[in-house]
Amino acid sequence: MSVVDRLAHPIVQAPMAGGPSTPELAAAVCDAGGLGFLASGYRSAAQTRDAIGAVRERTGRPFGVNVFVPGDPTVDQRELSRFLERLRPEAGRYGASVGAARFDDDDWQAKLELLSADAVAVVSFTFGCPPADAVGSLHDAGSEVWVTATTPDEARLAAEAGADAIVLQGVEAGGHRGAFLDGDEGEAFGILALLRLAARDVDLPLVAAGGIPDGAGVAAVLVAGAAAAQLGTAFMCANEAGTDPAQRRALQSERPTRLTRAFSGRQARGIVNRFMDELSDGAPFAYPHVHYATAPLRAAARERDDPDGFNLWAGQAHRLCRDEPAGEIVRRLASEAQEALRR
Amino acid sequence: MSVVDRLAHPIVQAPMAGGPSTPELAAAVCDAGGLGFLASGYRSAAQTRDAIGAVRERTGRPFGVNVFVPGDPTVDQRELSRFLERLRPEAGRYGASVGAARFDDDDWQAKLELLSADAVAVVSFTFGCPPADAVGSLHDAGSEVWVTATTPDEARLAAEAGADAIVLQGVEAGGHRGAFLDGDEGEAFGILALLRLAARDVDLPLVAAGGIPDGAGVAAVLVAGAAAAQLGTAFMCANEAGTDPAQRRALQSERPTRLTRAFSGRQARGIVNRFMDELSDGAPFAYPHVHYATAPLRAAARERDDPDGFNLWAGQAHRLCRDEPAGEIVRRLASEAQEALRR
Repeated sequence: MSVVDRLAHPIVQAPMAGGPSTPELAAAVCDAGGLGFLASGYRSAAQTRDAIGAVRERTGRPFGVNVFVPGDPTVDQRELSRFLERLRPEAGRYGASVGAARFDDDDWQAKLELLSADAVAVVSFTFGCPPADAVGSLHDAGSEVWVTATTPDEARLAAEAGADAIVLQGVEAGGHRGAFLDGDEGEAFGILALLRLAARDVDLPLVAAGGIPDGAGVAAVLVAGAAAAQLGTAFMCANEAGTDPAQRRALQSERPTRLTRAFSGRQARGIVNRFMDELSDGAPFAYPHVHYATAPLRAAARERDDPDGFNLWAGQAHRLCRDEPAGEIVRRLASEAQEALRR
Repeated sequence: MSVVDRLAHPIVQAPMAGGPSTPELAAAVCDAGGLGFLASGYRSAAQTRDAIGAVRERTGRPFGVNVFVPGDPTVDQRELSRFLERLRPEAGRYGASVGAARFDDDDWQAKLELLSADAVAVVSFTFGCPPADAVGSLHDAGSEVWVTATTPDEARLAAEAGADAIVLQGVEAGGHRGAFLDGDEGEAFGILALLRLAARDVDLPLVAAGGIPDGAGVAAVLVAGAAAAQLGTAFMCANEAGTDPAQRRALQSERPTRLTRAFSGRQARGIVNRFMDELSDGAPFAYPHVHYATAPLRAAARERDDPDGFNLWAGQAHRLCRDEPAGEIVRRLASEAQEALRR
């Protein structure tokens, strides 16, 4: 029986790298009967180990850890340089400097070793399909391997690579698109169409993500064939989340979202702000180079509580997220879902 | 009680202008317990009157007629001229000529008069919100007025304008986006997020459209708060549909879809083909000017059975559509939906 079948509520808290995901959030979700997740993205293996320890101090329940699959270090240097020039006045505005635009693999090998030596219930992957040896050693350690897919093709590839479940991410989702490649060719599927297509192709538990704001949305994806719903934005205003105050205010506004490469060099959905308006056009395919280049600017804007200068990741239905303890959110989602199914 | 509450099955056949919608299709859907629709787009009022008569010859059940709300005739003439130049070699390829790029209002006033004089059960609008006097005269005639919305804001405006139901169109939908304005600013909502947001804002029956391929998809939107599901692509391969043979083949393939303005000057989703690849970049906001300019080229490509030269409108889950009589499709969707709700 898979992890998702053993949950009291078919609700997964999405890993949200860059601040919102905390051990407190993951533990609270687990204790309420959902599946909490840690985001190892932008953290070293050592920091990830500490965060895992912090969850275990708070709960004995199963939880997951998300890992970024490293991409291709090759970028168009001319396009990248041109973009870095455009970042300079932006940095000046906040009294910051543009960071070094470098590649790294987000401590990939060390994280795999950590997670193979000391297993958690689920290891999920984003930005690509893990290689067979990685899947094998995590299986040997006793973990389930979940892979994020944004198209039916990616879902099929993940199934062939030995995944135990597929996280289907619709275009509605906040934060980075988890596509295997960050091209413009990949079709931007809405979650409902993606779920119905993947359900025909893949005989694995499907975890549906993307713009699911409430229990009626959870019930809808379950009816459409998902084994569980994964929600990120719905947990961003949770008391236990590490979400920045300026971002919390923006999340509860009516402001529109869109996809942009301006903050990180990879497509991600956030609430439209000045930075996005001014820098999205021509932002290069250069992840994580652009992420590191903008990091000091974003930190300085956060410091000044200025929501126009950093990434306000949010899914399309962000307006419906609520300031509540995470456990309350899980219980509310579950009871709303029950109610929607009864109607 | 609204029309949608009186249906045996909460299934609406989307109006599909440009060929697929036929009186036979609408009547077959109605007779199977769904709501059939005629598309008056690109037809004169007289042709619409004849099509209404042809439905009435086949069924005594209620059905709907969709009307395009005329847009702004003003276009950027330089951009349009530049695009028309790019169409010339494309026309040459098919031995055709580029059509006159003109504005018209799609016989708006005459259609309103026709539908006010001889009421059908539902008049739905696309590309904008009908003015109060139009809504009033259709109400006086005894029709329900439905308005297509792609954002929560549009849904609110439609409710304020007196609409009896809102057709929520997600970005997954095939064919033209029904947005009030064809800007790039409007957020491209997936149907599930759009439905949950609009359900909080608008106290009217919501009809959900966009990438719903089967009964599990229908059940999902009902659970998420829709009063009915509207499906277009699912009916495009119906025996009674007027869909072109080359398009039927493409619909049942795995080919990706995307949004483009290349065929009509307004955003629409179709299966990617050569025309779309070569002409989408820089296609102007100029509807229906571009529609008329490309019409002879598209007709010539259809004539040659060449799916690379005309618009292959399709929703994101087109691969799941089936060659069946429309009545069978309605009954299958209804029983699949029941089954999905039982699980």
